Amino acid sequence: MTVSKRLAGVLAPAVTPFKRNLTPDGARYVSHCKWLLSHGCSGLAVFGTNSEANSLSVEERMVLLETLVQEGVPADALMPGTGCCSLTDSVRLTSHAVALGCAGALMLPPFYYKGVSDEGLYRNFAEVIERVGDTRLRVYLYHIPPVSQVPITLGLIERLLKHYPGTVAGVKDSSGDWSNTKTMLDAFAKSGFDVFAGSEVFLLDNMKNGGVGCITATGNINPGAIDRLFRGWQGADAAELQKNVTATRNLMQKYPMMAALKAVIAHYGRDPEWVTVRPPLVELTPAQSRSLTAELEAIGFDMPGLVIASATATA
Amino acid sequence: MTVSKRLAGVLAPAVTPFKRNLTPDGARYVSHCKWLLSHGCSGLAVFGTNSEANSLSVEERMVLLETLVQEGVPADALMPGTGCCSLTDSVRLTSHAVALGCAGALMLPPFYYKGVSDEGLYRNFAEVIERVGDTRLRVYLYHIPPVSQVPITLGLIERLLKHYPGTVAGVKDSSGDWSNTKTMLDAFAKSGFDVFAGSEVFLLDNMKNGGVGCITATGNINPGAIDRLFRGWQGADAAELQKNVTATRNLMQKYPMMAALKAVIAHYGRDPEWVTVRPPLVELTPAQSRSLTAELEAIGFDMPGLVIASATATA
Repeated sequence: MTVSKRLAGVLAPAVTPFKRNLTPDGARYVSHCKWLLSHGCSGLAVFGTNSEANSLSVEERMVLLETLVQEGVPADALMPGTGCCSLTDSVRLTSHAVALGCAGALMLPPFYYKGVSDEGLYRNFAEVIERVGDTRLRVYLYHIPPVSQVPITLGLIERLLKHYPGTVAGVKDSSGDWSNTKTMLDAFAKSGFDVFAGSEVFLLDNMKNGGVGCITATGNINPGAIDRLFRGWQGADAAELQKNVTATRNLMQKYPMMAALKAVIAHYGRDPEWVTVRPPLVELTPAQSRSLTAELEAIGFDMPGLVIASATATA
Repeated sequence: MTVSKRLAGVLAPAVTPFKRNLTPDGARYVSHCKWLLSHGCSGLAVFGTNSEANSLSVEERMVLLETLVQEGVPADALMPGTGCCSLTDSVRLTSHAVALGCAGALMLPPFYYKGVSDEGLYRNFAEVIERVGDTRLRVYLYHIPPVSQVPITLGLIERLLKHYPGTVAGVKDSSGDWSNTKTMLDAFAKSGFDVFAGSEVFLLDNMKNGGVGCITATGNINPGAIDRLFRGWQGADAAELQKNVTATRNLMQKYPMMAALKAVIAHYGRDPEWVTVRPPLVELTPAQSRSLTAELEAIGFDMPGLVIASATATA
């Protein structure tokens, strides 16, 4: 039984391409994931929020994950999202990820019922860990209250760490609230609990305070610059690197993020089909797309090597 | 191809029993559903919010639905919840329900992403209807913003009714806001769009304004009294009947609803295993259970015939 290295650095919640008929597009997916890993991402948090993971069935996720591994994406660079509303779905996806050799599993809390107790959330995560029953499992808790509406509290983390040390490996904090990330770092980072910021906007602060990197939507389009900040956070130009990646992020955040990411990939990859999203999302309007790409061109943004990767996918 | 009668009256989102190991308990489920249909419910909105439907996998829901029909619960009394976050899951469950002959499908909007557009929600429902592609399909839209956080707006209903008349059959309004239900009734009831109140608290008002009944959590334990109000809403004692069912509802609402419903069934059915819920829910504490049942006894509440039904399930 091999225990893989722990992930650190810049992870992208790889966006999931769909064909026009809304089925997942395995070839474009593999191509995009390989481009990310060769252009700055040290890992991929596939099936995150920005991957439209919750618009996919359990089977669709499993097939896509198997496709990645079969096509040569290293499993020890993968941290698939496996937390579902249904306990049995979470167990199935998490077991599948562990069996494939994935580095970790990024777990949303069950997110349908609101106002649930920490006791209920503890039981959910504990039940998944017990049922998967594999020492290779590393759980990264996914705190994203603006979307899930169900928070991962400090008390819950503390209790899970106490009962499942080693297995409960870290957190992605997508609260958008630096003070919350700081509190998590202060409470748990020294004990080997890996805190990923949920946006590169907080990457420098996260590294200065004991964090291990970021898992960020815009890692899908700007992995090189974010990785340079990750690697150079102790350097003289770190503040300047931070300022630059923040500017790109802020520009993207003026648009609906998932549709905007796909519009940017379609534009720089010269591959119009990439814009497709599943309902309830909608693609950008032509005017939005033009405005977004014009703004990116204006700041000198680029995605080197993307056209070649796209050509491979389409071939 | 048979088109079944349209449902009206009191529908319960039948609670889903679990064994101690958290697997769904088919025998107790059939028994409970049959008790409901013989004690006041004219239909069952199985796999609703209070059924812990979103804590079940797609396969678990399909097996339970097939079990009901195989065990003699009439399919034309069933309105299963089939709306999921994933388009492909919604299509699969809705097709399955139609194939079994169910009277309708109660559809949540995809509820993970927040702040989505009506255009995106329209595409979701339209895509499900087109892909199921069966004239027997009747869609009931499920508006429950306190839980889903994704509303079904009047504009969305209007657009769906225009494009899919007959197929888009009605709504369950669980907003908890009578003025919203009234607005839906005023806008759509005359055209044959069936408005179910999401709580018996609004049943009399709903009937007076052209609604067709209610789909209510407490239908699981108090179907007889709610049905008497439904049948007698034009009678002299309607206000008194309303007052009584509202009192029971208000008493129940002091406790976490799903755990409370199961505690009441366990108590009156003399079947302790019924209290089991799946995480992230937790069962009532012993003190809460004692307090709840004492309050119910004090107002003369009963569930006639439940012990016999439970004995059948356990045998």
